Amino acid sequence: MLVVQVNIIVKKEFIKEFISATVENASNSTHEKGIAHFDFFQNQEDPTKFILLEAYRNDNAPAEHKETDHYKKWKSTVEEMMAEPRYSIKYFNIFPDDKDY
Amino acid sequence: MLVVQVNIIVKKEFIKEFISATVENASNSTHEKGIAHFDFFQNQEDPTKFILLEAYRNDNAPAEHKETDHYKKWKSTVEEMMAEPRYSIKYFNIFPDDKDY
Repeated sequence: MLVVQVNIIVKKEFIKEFISATVENASNSTHEKGIAHFDFFQNQEDPTKFILLEAYRNDNAPAEHKETDHYKKWKSTVEEMMAEPRYSIKYFNIFPDDKDY
Repeated sequence: MLVVQVNIIVKKEFIKEFISATVENASNSTHEKGIAHFDFFQNQEDPTKFILLEAYRNDNAPAEHKETDHYKKWKSTVEEMMAEPRYSIKYFNIFPDDKDY
């Protein structure tokens, strides 16, 4: 499993719209075959900070995700809402292991 | 739900032992009533970097977790393995929501 953590900081005035657009994307993404989890969290101390945790079942799944209509819609919708460029960190899952996802 | 992300950097020589001790703690932690998820990931670019993602069902659950034997054992075992002090970031889950955890 490949786990991608996307770190996002949003302009204050866009928090609500960003949440709405991202819940839609997350919800659609969980129906993709290659996606085991798609979690969306908001920082408790700074509500402009968010993370996405995307657990992909194989190495092709991230590229397939980027070809979906819901990803493309999300990307173009939220682009102007970002306070700074988002960045990703890639992880391996150790626990739970692949069979328990 | 309260989601705690613990950021850990381990001394290179302790990577294997740290993984072993942390898998044991994670596995035991998932049996706690107050814990919905306890995920353990290793950074793909820097194998000395790890995160724990702990999803707690209520505000008392983190304190209850710290009272368990498996947490106490983990804490004392890994203390010397850390390259620098670990730190936590607290999140709210937005997606999935509580009922889907």
